[in-house]
Amino acid sequence: MPALQFWFEFASTYSYPAAMRVEARATAAGLTVDWRPLLLGPIFQAQGWTDSPFNIYPVKGRYMWRDLERICEKEGLGFARPSRFPRPSLLAARVACVGATAPWGPAFVRAVYHANFFDDREIAEPTVIADIVQGLGVDAEAVLTAAQQPDAKARLRANTEEAIALGVFGAPTFSIGNELFWGNDRLDDAIAWATRR
Amino acid sequence: MPALQFWFEFASTYSYPAAMRVEARATAAGLTVDWRPLLLGPIFQAQGWTDSPFNIYPVKGRYMWRDLERICEKEGLGFARPSRFPRPSLLAARVACVGATAPWGPAFVRAVYHANFFDDREIAEPTVIADIVQGLGVDAEAVLTAAQQPDAKARLRANTEEAIALGVFGAPTFSIGNELFWGNDRLDDAIAWATRR
Repeated sequence: MPALQFWFEFASTYSYPAAMRVEARATAAGLTVDWRPLLLGPIFQAQGWTDSPFNIYPVKGRYMWRDLERICEKEGLGFARPSRFPRPSLLAARVACVGATAPWGPAFVRAVYHANFFDDREIAEPTVIADIVQGLGVDAEAVLTAAQQPDAKARLRANTEEAIALGVFGAPTFSIGNELFWGNDRLDDAIAWATRR
Repeated sequence: MPALQFWFEFASTYSYPAAMRVEARATAAGLTVDWRPLLLGPIFQAQGWTDSPFNIYPVKGRYMWRDLERICEKEGLGFARPSRFPRPSLLAARVACVGATAPWGPAFVRAVYHANFFDDREIAEPTVIADIVQGLGVDAEAVLTAAQQPDAKARLRANTEEAIALGVFGAPTFSIGNELFWGNDRLDDAIAWATRR
């Protein structure tokens, strides 16, 4: 099955509805999902930003929170504005790298987004991430140890560098070869592109 | 019929497909279009930008041009990347204010976008705008004279100020009351919102 690459960042607001929907939509279209956690920090820094653009530009931020609420309602996803934004996502992203090809990987991604954007949990805390992993029936200690090994760190760095080389400037982004589709609302366009004849 | 407010700027790339589609889509849904030309210059300046963000952030700009090409292909709209971007839109916007409630207004808006994003014409030139107006069977001299009167200038300023007060930070934006939908790809969501029960 051809793959849809999904570039996401756990702190990214619009990545939440994208992450919750991508696997079901892709599978229905005969595609697999290539889960690519990354860090937006280095990508934003290259654009001169040291914070989320939704914090830097408050008018845009105000729109985004309302828009996200509307999208979640439309898609039947729970939503509560996090009390802290953006939350540091380094540990969760490294764990997602460990799980990228594991059976529990996609469920972990969705559970972290749900924790951040609905349960308002502090996903930067190792105890919270451990609790999420444990909840999936996976050995949390082993996974968190693996997440701190050079291999997981290198995979996350490589994802971010590959995304930059591809021209990714924000998340979520979907890609098929060199074709990029930026934003949760472009998921259907990306799938249509990936399955065109 | 309830109205869908359509906030647009003639230099704005994604406003092109939005402007070409909005009237047909709105009419099919039983809505009228309230055409609201504005200037993004003052709105961008408030965000600290003195140029289009697509020029300030070239990686984003590269994506946008490819994305716009794809969108135009999907929507059956002609497209050619303008040799100058962004083009000064003050005169065209004032003429659109003159035509905002005239029968020729919507056709003028579409013709200016077509001139900028397909015919690569210099829409900052009065002769180009006059030619477009004349092509609609309207007295170009009378319209261009009206566009330089205090009334047209004040309407454009008032549109931009009203947009800022509403929380508009980019174009195209659709609004229904205080609900904003930003971006060409949110036209259908805006219409669904406007026609919800």
